[in-house]
Amino acid sequence: MNKFGTLYLIPITLGESPINNVIPEYNNVLLNEIDVYAVENIKTARRFLKKAGIQKPIEDLTFFEIGKRSESSNYPTFIKPLLEGKNMGILSEAGCPGVADPGAELVALAQEKKIKVVPLVGPSSILLSLMASGFNGQSFCFHGYLPIEQKQRVNKLKELERNAFREKQTQLFIETPFRNQAIFKDILTSLNNNTKLCVAVDLTLFTEEIYTKSIEDWKKETKLDLNKRPCIFLIG
Amino acid sequence: MNKFGTLYLIPITLGESPINNVIPEYNNVLLNEIDVYAVENIKTARRFLKKAGIQKPIEDLTFFEIGKRSESSNYPTFIKPLLEGKNMGILSEAGCPGVADPGAELVALAQEKKIKVVPLVGPSSILLSLMASGFNGQSFCFHGYLPIEQKQRVNKLKELERNAFREKQTQLFIETPFRNQAIFKDILTSLNNNTKLCVAVDLTLFTEEIYTKSIEDWKKETKLDLNKRPCIFLIG
Repeated sequence: MNKFGTLYLIPITLGESPINNVIPEYNNVLLNEIDVYAVENIKTARRFLKKAGIQKPIEDLTFFEIGKRSESSNYPTFIKPLLEGKNMGILSEAGCPGVADPGAELVALAQEKKIKVVPLVGPSSILLSLMASGFNGQSFCFHGYLPIEQKQRVNKLKELERNAFREKQTQLFIETPFRNQAIFKDILTSLNNNTKLCVAVDLTLFTEEIYTKSIEDWKKETKLDLNKRPCIFLIG
Repeated sequence: MNKFGTLYLIPITLGESPINNVIPEYNNVLLNEIDVYAVENIKTARRFLKKAGIQKPIEDLTFFEIGKRSESSNYPTFIKPLLEGKNMGILSEAGCPGVADPGAELVALAQEKKIKVVPLVGPSSILLSLMASGFNGQSFCFHGYLPIEQKQRVNKLKELERNAFREKQTQLFIETPFRNQAIFKDILTSLNNNTKLCVAVDLTLFTEEIYTKSIEDWKKETKLDLNKRPCIFLIG
């Protein structure tokens, strides 16, 4: 057996929900055994570690920034501590690292080097919305962001509707919060009236709302405001 | 606002892992506010509730059995307590209710009746394996069980391999534990040598193993025994 450290994949809260609501106690125990983190955003990561009540001084920890601001050519440097026997954690901006989030590339490199990778339990809007939708959970597909250009987006929505219907496969996708209202409008105008849509907003927060309705019934709904709220859409 | 109860979707441990490792404290608090459960297996459910240390006598709780042994024509009876204002919990056999598990149909009915549905955080082999695989988490598809008949299964595996490559979409599937070795053999003989496969076994247990390798490298691996161990396969 090699003497490498372990790479822990550590989910964080989806916004301002209390840690004990969505994170198992064990994760916080592990945080005290890690000195090196790869994170999407150092500020968010520091805030989360404080909220989790870790016992080490945060200024003694090492942070590498992954994602948009970082070149993947830096990744071999990032995993050096692991090769030297130190444990390391990946923290995303919200939810589970590597799922609809950076982190996957660093995990791939660790797997290649035969470093032990341990994923921890935490909140995922994909999984939570799937559970609460009432849609098929035996077969589902997450597509991330749909095309921004409207014609392409409408075509994609119709393709997902066909897949949901033909394959009985739940189709999930997300949008940048400030574009939620626009995509919601596109969904209602382009899909069939009897198609079922689930909209899950503010998951795990006190303002959480999750509704499954036919497109026809959604058209009558006028109160739900999705603007700037984290949201996931499911066609089932 | 209606006076219905809330339907909580409550994940349980994947086998014998300690509850605090994979379940947030909040879930256990909620368990003490629920008197009615819809469960896949009453015996497993009782054992889990004991392990979670609920303070009510288990014999005072009401259990409805969902899934294989139950007709969906019973479901309207099952949701009666919710319509009468009582909270209710759905517990699966392992992991998250409604995901690769029964429960979804009952949730769909609750959504139809405008009953509030609240999904709780817990372990999901789909999500944990996706995180640890290093594969694309921005686009992925879970297919449940593949066909049992070998020729159909091999065709399906090749279809998934094409999707993984063309769409850069991670493909996940499971098998009944006693058939793991057989499907593993089919994967190795039917997929391309440079295709990447992740195998995740005994997730969240002390015996957890998660490896991502090319098919070529997997062919050289002779020690990993998947027989009768819960396992999930990913092509990425």
